[in-house]
Amino acid sequence: MTRYAMRMAVTLKSEVLDPAGQATQAVVNERGFDAVGELRIGKLVDFSVQAGDPAEALEVARRLGREFLANPVLERFEVWMDQGRRTGHDGE
Amino acid sequence: MTRYAMRMAVTLKSEVLDPAGQATQAVVNERGFDAVGELRIGKLVDFSVQAGDPAEALEVARRLGREFLANPVLERFEVWMDQGRRTGHDGE
Repeated sequence: MTRYAMRMAVTLKSEVLDPAGQATQAVVNERGFDAVGELRIGKLVDFSVQAGDPAEALEVARRLGREFLANPVLERFEVWMDQGRRTGHDGE
Repeated sequence: MTRYAMRMAVTLKSEVLDPAGQATQAVVNERGFDAVGELRIGKLVDFSVQAGDPAEALEVARRLGREFLANPVLERFEVWMDQGRRTGHDGE
């Protein structure tokens, strides 16, 4: 089994208002970052999955997104292998 | 000027405890996802930057991370161009 490093982005659907993002953008624009727009805040979840191969790890990660980490009414999620992060080899 | 879609990950430094991540992982493990480990929760910020070229857009985004979006004591940030997201061309 290998331990795969995964990263998930959970973001509000585009039709859902994001007051925290709007407030952050207003402050940022006021303080000199006027080139910044369309700011939206989401969640990031980093985790590892022990699996026999990358396809199995991705399948577990997608199921985790569907069943636990994202609210399907308001949110969408994307998940990918995080090549940059250290991945341990876990025994056999 | 072009509008570049950027994505920033703001994560706790590895030496900082993440109780929310630990609690989420415990629940997830209990509910059948025992292959999931090392779960940590961070913030994701999607935004656009109007700039003359990609290097300038990245520089603005990094400055935004340093000065506003990440707490340098507890957090680190990564920022990248989000090729997947629609980027508008913003007039001239």
